[in-house]
Order: sequence, then C-alpha cells, then structure tokens
Amino acid sequence: MFRSVDIIKTIKLLKEENNTLKSKVQLSKTIIEDLEDQRLNITLKSLQELKKKNEKLNAQNIKLQKTEKELSIKNDHLEKAIENKNLLMKEIHHRVKNNLQLLSSLLSIQKRNNKVYDNSELIIGITNRITAISSLHQMLYQNFGSELINLEDYLNKTFKPIINSEAKLVIDGPSFMISIEACTYLGLILNELITNSLKHGWKTGNFKEKIIRISFHTPPPHFSLHYSDNGNGLIDTSSKEGFGKSIISLLITKQMTGKYKEYSKEGYNMEIEIPEKELSN
Amino acid sequence: MFRSVDIIKTIKLLKEENNTLKSKVQLSKTIIEDLEDQRLNITLKSLQELKKKNEKLNAQNIKLQKTEKELSIKNDHLEKAIENKNLLMKEIHHRVKNNLQLLSSLLSIQKRNNKVYDNSELIIGITNRITAISSLHQMLYQNFGSELINLEDYLNKTFKPIINSEAKLVIDGPSFMISIEACTYLGLILNELITNSLKHGWKTGNFKEKIIRISFHTPPPHFSLHYSDNGNGLIDTSSKEGFGKSIISLLITKQMTGKYKEYSKEGYNMEIEIPEKELSN
Repeated sequence: MFRSVDIIKTIKLLKEENNTLKSKVQLSKTIIEDLEDQRLNITLKSLQELKKKNEKLNAQNIKLQKTEKELSIKNDHLEKAIENKNLLMKEIHHRVKNNLQLLSSLLSIQKRNNKVYDNSELIIGITNRITAISSLHQMLYQNFGSELINLEDYLNKTFKPIINSEAKLVIDGPSFMISIEACTYLGLILNELITNSLKHGWKTGNFKEKIIRISFHTPPPHFSLHYSDNGNGLIDTSSKEGFGKSIISLLITKQMTGKYKEYSKEGYNMEIEIPEKELSN
Repeated sequence: MFRSVDIIKTIKLLKEENNTLKSKVQLSKTIIEDLEDQRLNITLKSLQELKKKNEKLNAQNIKLQKTEKELSIKNDHLEKAIENKNLLMKEIHHRVKNNLQLLSSLLSIQKRNNKVYDNSELIIGITNRITAISSLHQMLYQNFGSELINLEDYLNKTFKPIINSEAKLVIDGPSFMISIEACTYLGLILNELITNSLKHGWKTGNFKEKIIRISFHTPPPHFSLHYSDNGNGLIDTSSKEGFGKSIISLLITKQMTGKYKEYSKEGYNMEIEIPEKELSN
C-alpha cells in the first residue's frame, strides 16, 4: 500500500511537471511566433525594397525604350535626309551640266543661223570652254561623293570629244587627284591651248599625223605640265595673242599663282609650273 | 485519508494529462516549424524571383543605356553629316556661279583683245546668257534650302544689272514661285528678248524714256507672260531671226511646251503662254 507522504509528493511533482510543461508550451509558442514575426518582417522589408527597386527599374526601362524608339525614328529621318541631300547634290551637278549643255546648244543654233559675221571659230572656242566645265560636272555627277577628280580621266573625257578626229591626243602622267577648282582652271587652260593648236598648229607643211601631247608630273613642291603639238610651232605670236593667250596667262599666273614658258621644238610647246598646294585646295 | 483506488486514478489522470501536454508541445512545435518553413520558403521564392527579375531589368537597362548612347552618337554624326552636305551644296552653287563668272571674264578679255572681227555684240549676248544662269545659282546659294525661286526676285536680280542704265525695267506680277529648271528657261528667253530690245528696239525716233516691261499672271492651267518695250516694234523680222528668235522659239515651244505670238503695239510685244505644270516640275 502507498504511504500517504509519498503519494502526496508524487502528485505534487506530477502537478509541478504539468505546470512547467504548460508554461513551456506557452513559452515556445510565444518565442516561435516572435521569431516568425521577425523573420517575416525582415523578408517583407526586403521584398518591399526589391519591389520598389523593381518598379523604379521598370519605369526607367520604359523611359529608355521610349527614348530609344524616338532616337531610332530620328535616326531614320536623318538617314533619309542624307539620302535626299545626296540625290539633290547629284541633281545639282546634273542640272548644271544640262544648263551648260543648253548654253552650248544655243551657241550651235546661233552658229548655224548667223551668217552676218564669221564668228564660228569664236563660238566654237566658247562652246569648248563650256564643255570643259560641263564635263567636270558630268564627272562629279557620275562619281558622286568624291571631292577630287582624277586628272587623266578628266582630260580624256573632256578633250577626246573636242579634238575628235582632228588630231591624236596622247596623255602621259601618274594617277593624280586634283581639286574641282584646280581641274576647272587646268581644263580651261588646256582648252585654249588645244583650240589654238587645232586652229593654227598645222597650217603649213604636211604632217603624217597630227599629235597633241599632254604630260604631267608631280615632283613636290610643284606640279608640272608639258603641252605640245607636233605642228609649225610658235609662228605668229601677235595673231595668237588675241585668241586665248591672255586667257591662258590669266588662268596660270593669277588664278593658280603659277608660271609658264612657250617655245618651238618639233612643234609648239608650253611648260607650265604650278605650286602643288594650288591643286589640292 | 486517501483511498487507494482514488489515488491511483488521480496519478494516472495526471500522467495522462502530462503526456498529452508533452505531445501537444511537440506537435505545436512541429506545426509551427512547418508553417514557418512554408512561409519562409514562399517569401524566399518571391525574393529570389524578384531578385532575378531585378537583375534582368538591370541588364536590360544597361543594354538600353548603351543603345541610347550609341544612337545619340550616331545621331550627332548624322546631324553633322547633314550640316556638311548643306555646306557642300551651298559650295557647289557658289562654285558653279564662280565658274560661270569665270567664263564671263574670259569672254570680256576676249572682247577687249579681239580686234579682228566685230563680235562684241555676240559676246555680250553670250555673256548675258551666262549671267542669267549664274544669277540663278547665286540665288540658290543665298536662299539655300529652297527648291523654288521667286520669279520677280530672280528677274530683278538678273536683269536690272544687265539692262543697267540703258532702259527702265518694270516688272509686274504676283508673288510666284517656280522651279529651278523653269527659271533657267524663262531667264534665257527673257535674256534674248532684252538683248534684242537693247540692240534693235529704239533705233529710230526719239524716246523720252526707254522702258522694258515684263508682266506675268497665273490663271490656271496656264502661266502667261507679256514682254514689251516701248520702241519701234517689230520692224525687220529677218534680221532679228539670227539673233535669238530661233533660240526663243526652241526654249518656249520645245523645252516648255508653250506657245507665243509677237506683234507691234506701242513698241515690240511678245505674249508667252506656258502650261502651269511646266513651272513646278
């Protein structure tokens, strides 16, 4: 049988244990809840921050995409504008060439109809000058975008049609690019020389072949050009004077700050020297 | 005193309650831990997703910023290119004008030096034609960007210097914009008419004032231009023929598909009618 004291003790112990356990249950609940709350708060804070950041980035993104689209559209417009400008520039050269050809046509009509004075030679000279310039614009139209002209190319394209079958044109020189302005001047100078040769060059004597020779070289700091025909040479300076010599002088010495000399040696010769810098300006 | 049965029962009950509590403590722990784990997982997952999204957005942002920068640079280049093209186009007009003026200068040198034939009038006529075109390029250079020319403006700027003090020029018409091509043709036509008037217009008789009148109006579908001088009128058609009439005819009927008639009435008169579409092409 139980002893009264023992029994009471046991019951007391059990009750005590019971209470401890109960408080443990309560305590652990509280602690766990607290911990959970804390953790949740931390993650919620992070979540909120991240979400905020996210929204900010998204807004930035949308703005950037908008800007990109706008820039792209602007870019397209600009590219089209450049294309148009290029077409317009080609168009200008084409129009200039056409206008100069129109001037030539008007001159040829005038030459045909004009029986009062003998000025066909004058008209031919002027027409050739116009051709020298219009040929340049034709090249600028065709090789559009280039600011420089290949000299040999220009000489061939311009003077072969002018000389036609009247003489043989021999061009000799390195591949050399010159400015449009310099090309205009050289074209006009050579046009006068060629016009003179065709008109006065082979007046007396029999020539197996009429030859016009243009050779050029470029030893710095000068550009040298040698023009010659195999005709009668320098005969009558005074009569030549009126037809282009003063023009040649003006173009070489004033426009191109160069110098020249002419002499007879197996025909007519002119040596021209021009400062190199005049050809690239 | 306690009854043995009662005591045993009490102890048993207490022990049972104790066990229940213990398992409750255990169970609640497990449940809470599970719940916590679940919650944590969910938020961690969200956090991870958000972080991933964030990184993606960030990367996108960086890429977009790079693209934006590239596009901006390209834009700047394109804008500079357009500026350059504009300068180049202005430059072309300037150069064309200069080249045409050079042609005129060469002609005036030729006129001075040429004492063999009397062709000053021919040279003046050609020089004026060149002026009619170079004046156009001067306007295109100055009002750069415009594809159309104000007709009255062009007529004043071109023909007042040509006529000089030889006669009074009266221009009468609405503000009217025409294409560069049409302007070229009209300029050349009027140049021939003016050259004719100045040369033949007031040969006999005394005139208090020499007047050249250009009036134009634009009733669709035609453009009408009336040219007149207050001189002797149509006198000798055959002599006039050689100096510009065939040129005028060519320009009006072939180039501009128009028609014209000339008559005498208080001087010389020419009425020109050109299809409106020819002026805007």
